[in-house]
Amino acid sequence: MEIEINFLKQPKLRRPYLIGGLPGIAYVGKLSVDHLIKELKAELFAEIYSKFFPPYVLIDENGLVELLKNELYYWKNNVSERDLIFFTGNAQATTPEGQYLIADKVLDIVLELGCERVYSIAASLTRKTNKKARVFGAVTDLKLISEMKKHKVILMEKGIIGGANGLMLGLAKIRNIPGLCLLGETQGFRTVSGEFLVDANAVRAVLQVLIKTLDINVDLSPLDEEVEYMKDTIKKIAEMEEYIIKKQREAASRGYKNYIT
Amino acid sequence: MEIEINFLKQPKLRRPYLIGGLPGIAYVGKLSVDHLIKELKAELFAEIYSKFFPPYVLIDENGLVELLKNELYYWKNNVSERDLIFFTGNAQATTPEGQYLIADKVLDIVLELGCERVYSIAASLTRKTNKKARVFGAVTDLKLISEMKKHKVILMEKGIIGGANGLMLGLAKIRNIPGLCLLGETQGFRTVSGEFLVDANAVRAVLQVLIKTLDINVDLSPLDEEVEYMKDTIKKIAEMEEYIIKKQREAASRGYKNYIT
Amino acid sequence: MEIEINFLKQPKLRRPYLIGGLPGIAYVGKLSVDHLIKELKAELFAEIYSKFFPPYVLIDENGLVELLKNELYYWKNNVSERDLIFFTGNAQATTPEGQYLIADKVLDIVLELGCERVYSIAASLTRKTNKKARVFGAVTDLKLISEMKKHKVILMEKGIIGGANGLMLGLAKIRNIPGLCLLGETQGFRTVSGEFLVDANAVRAVLQVLIKTLDINVDLSPLDEEVEYMKDTIKKIAEMEEYIIKKQREAASRGYKNYIT
Amino acid sequence: MEIEINFLKQPKLRRPYLIGGLPGIAYVGKLSVDHLIKELKAELFAEIYSKFFPPYVLIDENGLVELLKNELYYWKNNVSERDLIFFTGNAQATTPEGQYLIADKVLDIVLELGCERVYSIAASLTRKTNKKARVFGAVTDLKLISEMKKHKVILMEKGIIGGANGLMLGLAKIRNIPGLCLLGETQGFRTVSGEFLVDANAVRAVLQVLIKTLDINVDLSPLDEEVEYMKDTIKKIAEMEEYIIKKQREAASRGYKNYIT
Repeated sequence: MEIEINFLKQPKLRRPYLIGGLPGIAYVGKLSVDHLIKELKAELFAEIYSKFFPPYVLIDENGLVELLKNELYYWKNNVSERDLIFFTGNAQATTPEGQYLIADKVLDIVLELGCERVYSIAASLTRKTNKKARVFGAVTDLKLISEMKKHKVILMEKGIIGGANGLMLGLAKIRNIPGLCLLGETQGFRTVSGEFLVDANAVRAVLQVLIKTLDINVDLSPLDEEVEYMKDTIKKIAEMEEYIIKKQREAASRGYKNYIT
Repeated sequence: MEIEINFLKQPKLRRPYLIGGLPGIAYVGKLSVDHLIKELKAELFAEIYSKFFPPYVLIDENGLVELLKNELYYWKNNVSERDLIFFTGNAQATTPEGQYLIADKVLDIVLELGCERVYSIAASLTRKTNKKARVFGAVTDLKLISEMKKHKVILMEKGIIGGANGLMLGLAKIRNIPGLCLLGETQGFRTVSGEFLVDANAVRAVLQVLIKTLDINVDLSPLDEEVEYMKDTIKKIAEMEEYIIKKQREAASRGYKNYIT
Repeated sequence: MEIEINFLKQPKLRRPYLIGGLPGIAYVGKLSVDHLIKELKAELFAEIYSKFFPPYVLIDENGLVELLKNELYYWKNNVSERDLIFFTGNAQATTPEGQYLIADKVLDIVLELGCERVYSIAASLTRKTNKKARVFGAVTDLKLISEMKKHKVILMEKGIIGGANGLMLGLAKIRNIPGLCLLGETQGFRTVSGEFLVDANAVRAVLQVLIKTLDINVDLSPLDEEVEYMKDTIKKIAEMEEYIIKKQREAASRGYKNYIT
Repeated sequence: MEIEINFLKQPKLRRPYLIGGLPGIAYVGKLSVDHLIKELKAELFAEIYSKFFPPYVLIDENGLVELLKNELYYWKNNVSERDLIFFTGNAQATTPEGQYLIADKVLDIVLELGCERVYSIAASLTRKTNKKARVFGAVTDLKLISEMKKHKVILMEKGIIGGANGLMLGLAKIRNIPGLCLLGETQGFRTVSGEFLVDANAVRAVLQVLIKTLDINVDLSPLDEEVEYMKDTIKKIAEMEEYIIKKQREAASRGYKNYIT
């Protein structure tokens, strides 16, 4: 099971765009996409499992066990001829190789579905405290810059976009698919135990731009509630992990020697 | 030798269940399964070697050298038509990839033998000091919850199960095999040099539930003795490892540069 | 996309030499080769993408996103029958495996083009502060030593050359291709945040030798300006990376556990 | 070039034994085998290159560049019908996978040549300061114990043998090839910068046993001189590495981010 795709449906889509956001700084990418999926009632059509994800399972609030996974959803647009595909998940690959291979696989799938453009959502760390989070942009092609400017997105100058949120654009570019990244400004606050706090402001700022760009209708008011829920989840898992983390770190530093009995 | 299976027998089993427990927190999973194997006189039928295990050999008390390995045992039930397969070993894979691939391979083997359900045994870390270790449970399917409750297992709410003990359930789930995990409560005490102490109380608590669930007869009284033996083994190996560990850690931090002469 | 080569052209070259310099100590190798490419107006003919490179994309000063990559350029010599191939890039592979495989792949490509010799450029760390950087040399064959001495290159005695700059020579040797390394002496100064400072003196010293060796005409005066530009780029990226780096380091030390939400 | 074998000869051997010693604690294994090769004038017949070795090249005292490699030598016994194969090298693989795969490959080669037994040489760390280093033994088969005792080798009780020196025995065992390990007692002293000191006493003790066991004639008096040479080499390389090591460590801790320019 290098990368295993479980297709639940084979949707027929009209000139779709891909909107991707995986866990990263302040969960801006993931929360943005999760919110769109929820509000638009997008439909899950593919689950992606992989040996590149972290090697453990999650237990949810009902005691249900589940592998880490990435997911693809689709949404049929009943206003225009532009359907949407969403890419999200609860994990990123643990190695550079895995990160490249999974992003590449996702592009394979969405191109098969006729995908014409890739949007990714990420965060841009800043030390400034602005009342309103700014939205930065980066593109794979100079032709896309005017579109960014139209929506008052500030073009990013020099920087990096890490993990899946960056690679899906970079890999799209070498396949000649136009790609855009919206980066929500965040200060990247963390809890005492080191977890990023979900930044609802950055998410809201990014989604306001994205909604206008895509010309879709999405209610942003439930965002605060979702942030509360995520905070809670992150905290609970952090507690459970505390000991296990310590153990893993030691195991690694011992060259995995304490697996023996 | 990516993963090499040495089949000693090809048992014919009647609707077997898999019971797996690999080394992990407080050795609860491994010791539980080892005890069942010993008391039921289960028979070894497959040895699993892999390049994903830690790269060294063990020397036993007789001076015999042996690769690290995982093992599969079977037990023919002479009371009911439900045979058992046991999965244990002295190591877990050193990489996420290896952990997924080995758990997946084990499922291949047991499904070939008609396996109808997967149980894994693990530990749940807690800071409470209870006289009697509690037993927590997690399942791959909501239908299994009633079974957990019947045996007074406390359903776990949010958490993770690391390594093989978690992955065998997660991977079973995506293959539509029902899976259950019993987690023995432990405080995860450690020796001065950082090794987990084997927690016989957690093992006993888990096995009491499992024995009832499977409706089998197993004497739990020899557990204390086994714990003593394991403690001793762990300590001796820890002494031997002390220098080697130091060396490996340094080698890694030097980018493996000090292998040269 | 293990290693993906994007050929822009299929040049016909006359008995070419390969000149390679990837990012390393004080950027001596990379800057040297970049300068030659720029001054000779060498032409890009192949881009090398790989899952072994670090998993993120760069954003340039125009907001353009780009995968990390290595590049091959060619230059047609209009004075002699000796064309040149240049090998550079903005990244090295993140694993030993990747470093070997990419260097090996590059040799495949250049040998196909008739390459007769491999030069690599690297740095040699020293604690001495000399007014003029010395140039050290290492070779794959004793027959090449006289050539080194002719150009007053000091033969290196015992040492190592790390990464692509070393491996392309070592791998050339086992294919019976003559190889030479020029190492510019540098003190490896760093910024407060740990980045190497580009050492223009070392680059100039190495290029003075290389230009004579190859009997080509290259203006070295623009070097200082390029160094200024690189410094600036490195600093800007370093600022952007600061937070992300911290996050990645933590993620790794947690066994990648904080990717969950 | 996963693993690349360069065969210089295809020797015909009579029921050979393999004697292996790779770099490890106090260089006991490597130095022992190197000494036998030198004194017996054994002939190099295969070089083993691999992407699993550390990614750099060595420069020797003549300025010659060379990839890290492992080597196989043979020696034709003109006294008895028992030829010998030697396995040594200047590096071990950087990953568990690599260590298994290379040891396995070496067994492939020597079994093809009719190898009937595998000896490996390693070190056993102790804190005792004995005038004379003791020699410990471990075997793959209880039948070999009497042979150990005949030569006054102390059977090791519980322990581990790390890397190639252990794996070649463990892998031989699962192929049903008899294997023995001789471990020279050493205190594992180190230089200020952390390198192991070569322990000539441990080497001498091990070789005295091995020579009797194999019934061969080898002069041990040049050992002290060789130790001096190795010390010198290790020290020189350590100096060269000091800066590079620091850089690599930082690069790793930054998620390899400072490769960019």
